[in-house]
Amino acid sequence: MSLPATIDESACCVPRVTSPLTAQQTEQVARVFKALGDPTRVALLSLIARSEGGEACICDLTDPVGLSQATVSHHMRLLAEAGLVTREQRGRWAYFAVNGNALAAAADALRPS
Amino acid sequence: MSLPATIDESACCVPRVTSPLTAQQTEQVARVFKALGDPTRVALLSLIARSEGGEACICDLTDPVGLSQATVSHHMRLLAEAGLVTREQRGRWAYFAVNGNALAAAADALRPS
Repeated sequence: MSLPATIDESACCVPRVTSPLTAQQTEQVARVFKALGDPTRVALLSLIARSEGGEACICDLTDPVGLSQATVSHHMRLLAEAGLVTREQRGRWAYFAVNGNALAAAADALRPS
Repeated sequence: MSLPATIDESACCVPRVTSPLTAQQTEQVARVFKALGDPTRVALLSLIARSEGGEACICDLTDPVGLSQATVSHHMRLLAEAGLVTREQRGRWAYFAVNGNALAAAADALRPS
């Protein structure tokens, strides 16, 4: 599959898990939920969402989850590839914000069709 | 963690991923999304939801996904353990139905807090 692992931000285009799905759509949906299917990534999302201004420097994420920056970077890359967070490089550090539209789109995918 | 991998059916009690979460809650949320984070399981959910009466015999699920009954049973067990489907044994066959409340609860977990 060469599709980027993102859920389209427009709510019109989120495949519902209870609707007929192509193989491509099942891959798309599964990749987003796989990104959410890890306790560390859930904790990171929660931390970022509750940070001042809704964004967090990766330098402030390592201590709360008790993991190395390399490991946190790996988890953040998976969340970013799934479209669930946005990433902005500022000088030495990467800053992350939760993509509320992508979370809402993932929620919509679980609604009855 | 000894918690069952289910999301409570009452919408009041679903931890939001954007809210402060205990370690137990991050595990709980992650386990449900991990169950959704696989293309075969997404395809199985979709098939069951679209089956007559909203339920499907495991005997009717193997052909559409092109997998052995043992493999499909394994995936269905993970979905059932996450509370996303209910299982009923009728004679030789197990029948599965999508738990709409659990899907709605998972969707709610992705809403802004």
